[in-house]
Amino acid sequence: MSKTELEQDKLVDDFLRQENLSDASLEECETALNHLIQGIHGLDEQVMSAVQTRLDSLTKPQGSLGVLEALAKQLGGIQGQPWPEVQKKAILVMAGDHGVVAEGVSAFPQEVTPQMFYNFLGGGAGINVLARHAGAEVICTDVGMAFPLDPPELMAHRIMNGTHNMAQGPAMSRKEALLSLLTGAKIARQAIDSGVNVLATGEVGIGNTTPSTAIISLLTGLPPQEVTGRGTGLDDAGLIRKQDVIARSIAINQPDPKDGVDILSKIGGLEIGALAGAILAAAYSRVPILLDGVISTAAALIAVRICPTARFFLIPSHSSVEIGHRAALEQLDLKPIMHLDFRLGEGTGAAIAFHLLDASIRILNEMATFESAGVSGKN
Amino acid sequence: MSKTELEQDKLVDDFLRQENLSDASLEECETALNHLIQGIHGLDEQVMSAVQTRLDSLTKPQGSLGVLEALAKQLGGIQGQPWPEVQKKAILVMAGDHGVVAEGVSAFPQEVTPQMFYNFLGGGAGINVLARHAGAEVICTDVGMAFPLDPPELMAHRIMNGTHNMAQGPAMSRKEALLSLLTGAKIARQAIDSGVNVLATGEVGIGNTTPSTAIISLLTGLPPQEVTGRGTGLDDAGLIRKQDVIARSIAINQPDPKDGVDILSKIGGLEIGALAGAILAAAYSRVPILLDGVISTAAALIAVRICPTARFFLIPSHSSVEIGHRAALEQLDLKPIMHLDFRLGEGTGAAIAFHLLDASIRILNEMATFESAGVSGKN
Repeated sequence: MSKTELEQDKLVDDFLRQENLSDASLEECETALNHLIQGIHGLDEQVMSAVQTRLDSLTKPQGSLGVLEALAKQLGGIQGQPWPEVQKKAILVMAGDHGVVAEGVSAFPQEVTPQMFYNFLGGGAGINVLARHAGAEVICTDVGMAFPLDPPELMAHRIMNGTHNMAQGPAMSRKEALLSLLTGAKIARQAIDSGVNVLATGEVGIGNTTPSTAIISLLTGLPPQEVTGRGTGLDDAGLIRKQDVIARSIAINQPDPKDGVDILSKIGGLEIGALAGAILAAAYSRVPILLDGVISTAAALIAVRICPTARFFLIPSHSSVEIGHRAALEQLDLKPIMHLDFRLGEGTGAAIAFHLLDASIRILNEMATFESAGVSGKN
Repeated sequence: MSKTELEQDKLVDDFLRQENLSDASLEECETALNHLIQGIHGLDEQVMSAVQTRLDSLTKPQGSLGVLEALAKQLGGIQGQPWPEVQKKAILVMAGDHGVVAEGVSAFPQEVTPQMFYNFLGGGAGINVLARHAGAEVICTDVGMAFPLDPPELMAHRIMNGTHNMAQGPAMSRKEALLSLLTGAKIARQAIDSGVNVLATGEVGIGNTTPSTAIISLLTGLPPQEVTGRGTGLDDAGLIRKQDVIARSIAINQPDPKDGVDILSKIGGLEIGALAGAILAAAYSRVPILLDGVISTAAALIAVRICPTARFFLIPSHSSVEIGHRAALEQLDLKPIMHLDFRLGEGTGAAIAFHLLDASIRILNEMATFESAGVSGKN
C-alpha cells in the first residue's frame, strides 16, 4: 500500500468510525463516499492466472468444474493471493420500511418488518437457519424501520422512520440516501474488522420489492410491466397496481439515471442504500460479497452505478421467482448459479451459495494433480 | 409390512446377498429384477400433506422457500414420516469401460478410467473433495472396466472387461445387462444396510457420454444432433463423429424403446446399468437418490423405463454443460436446481446438492412458526 493509499484508508476509516454519521454535513457525506470509491480497484489478474494454472493441473478435464473454478479464481483475484481462504462469513441483513406501502403494494402489513426483525434476533427466521447451516453469522441492522424498537439501542443506526411515499415525491433526501450508503459501509467495515472475509447481502422491509423494481426498471430500461413481480404474494389486481405505482414514482421523481445517489434518494429505500454501501465497502476492503435476491440485486445496480469496479467483487447466488431479478442480474452481467424458486429475501439464497464458495476453495486446495495421481492427460 | 411384502423382501435380499450374482441363470436374474420392481411403491401422500401444513406455519410467505420446501416434502413422502432425517450419505461411483471408444469418441485414452478409479480410492479426485465437504462417503465399484486392477479383489463386482463396440453390435448380452442392474442394486442395498439413508449417483468411464447420449436420444425421441455434447472435450470433428456413432449404434441394434433392459444391453454401459439398478434399489428401500449429470440421468431414464414409480425417489441436482442432460431431465419431468457449468461427472454435481437436502431438513425442524414468533400473517 502506498503512502497516499494509507492516508486515503485513514480518511475512510475515520469517517466510518464516527459514532453518529448523521452529524456530518451533506458535503462531508459526499466527500466520504468519494474517498470510498477512489479506494476501489480491480482484481489481481496475475493471481487469477496463477489460480487458473493450478486448476488446470488438477485431475479433471480443464474447466470441467465450471462455476467452482470461476469462484476460486475470482476469490484469488479479490484477495490478491493464489491460495484464497474463507475465514469468517457474515450475512448483513438490513431492515427498512417504505412509505409507498400506502399505495397497497404489499400482501403483508407493515408491522411485519419489526416482527421479522425480532424473529431474526431470536434466531427463528429462514435466514438464521440457513446461516447456521453455512457457518455464517447474521448481522441485523435497523437502518430505517417505521415503528419504534425495544430496547431503543436497536435503533442506533436508524436514519429515518421509513421512507416517504415515492409515488408522491422523493423517498428520501440526498443526504439521507448518502447516510444509508455510508451506514451500510460502516456496518460492513465493522464486520470485516472483526475478521469476516466473506459477506452476503440480506434484507427485510415490507414493500421493498416495489422500490427495488423501480430501480431495476430505470437501470435496465425495461418497462415496469416486464420487471414487476408479486413480492410476498400479490394477487392480479395488486400486481397491476404495483406496476402503476412504479411507473408513477419514476415519472414524478425523474431520477437521473447516471447518478446512483439520486436514484436511491428518489425511488430507493434505506436498506437498499445500506446494502449498496456494504457492497462498496466490501469492494474497498477486497472482500467478496454474495448477492441474494431482487432487493440485493437492485442495491448492486446502485453500487455499480456509483462505482463500476465494484462489480468484480459481486458473486451471484440464485435467480428468484421475482421476474425483475433476472433482468437485474443480466444488466450486471452476472449469471445466477441456482434456481431455488425462492421469493423470501432475507439473504436466504446467498446463504446457500456460501457452500459453493467453500467447495471452490476445497477443490483448489485438496484435489490431486495429474502428476501426483499418475493420471494421463488428453489424447 | 404385510406378510407377502416380508416374503418379497426376503426374496430380494436373498438374491442380492449372493456372493457371485453371475452364477444365477438369465431366468433367475429376470425374476430377481421383477421382485425388486414389485416392491417399489409411490410416496406417502398423507405424510406429504402433514409436511406441507408444517411448512405453511413457518415465518415466511407460503411456498417462498421453493425448492427447499419441495425437498422436505419429498423426503417426508419417501421416508413415510413427517420429520424426515438425513443420517448417512453416500455417493455410489460406478466404473465401466466402453468398446465404442474404438470409434474415437473420447478426448482421453481408456487407461484414464482405472487411473481415475485409483484416484478415487486415494481421495484426490473432485468427487472425493466434494463428498468430504458434504459429509458423504464415496463408494467406488468396478462393474466393468477393461484393464486389470491391483489388488484383484477390486474387480470382485466386475461383470465383464468393458462393453463391446455398440457401433458394431450389442454393447452386452441381456444377462450382462441384468447383472449390471442387479449388481448396482446389491451395492446400494449394502450401503443402505450400513445405515446410509440418502444416496447419490456418480460414475467414471472414458467414452460413457456416448452410450448415455444414445439412450437419451432413443428415449426422448430427439435426434443425436440435438442431444450430443463434447464430453470431456471433443473438437468439432470429434463431435460430428460421435453423433454419427450414436446414430449408427441405434440403427444397427434396433433397441426396443419399451424394454429398458433391452436398451441397456444394446446401447448402454455397465456403470449405467449399475446406476439404474441402484436407483431401483433406492426406490425399493424408500431412500432418496440424487442424480448427477448426463450419465446418471441416462441411467435414471433406464430405471424409470423399467419401473415408472422409481421417478418419485429421484432428486435432480445440476444441469451440466452436456446438451443431452437437460433433455433427459425434462423427459423425467425433473427441474435442475443448479447451473454449475460442470462437465466432469463422478457425482460432483450431486455431491453439491447434498447441502440443499440438509438445508431443507433444517428449515423444517428449526424455523419459528408465525405463532411462536408473534409475526402477523397476510393482509
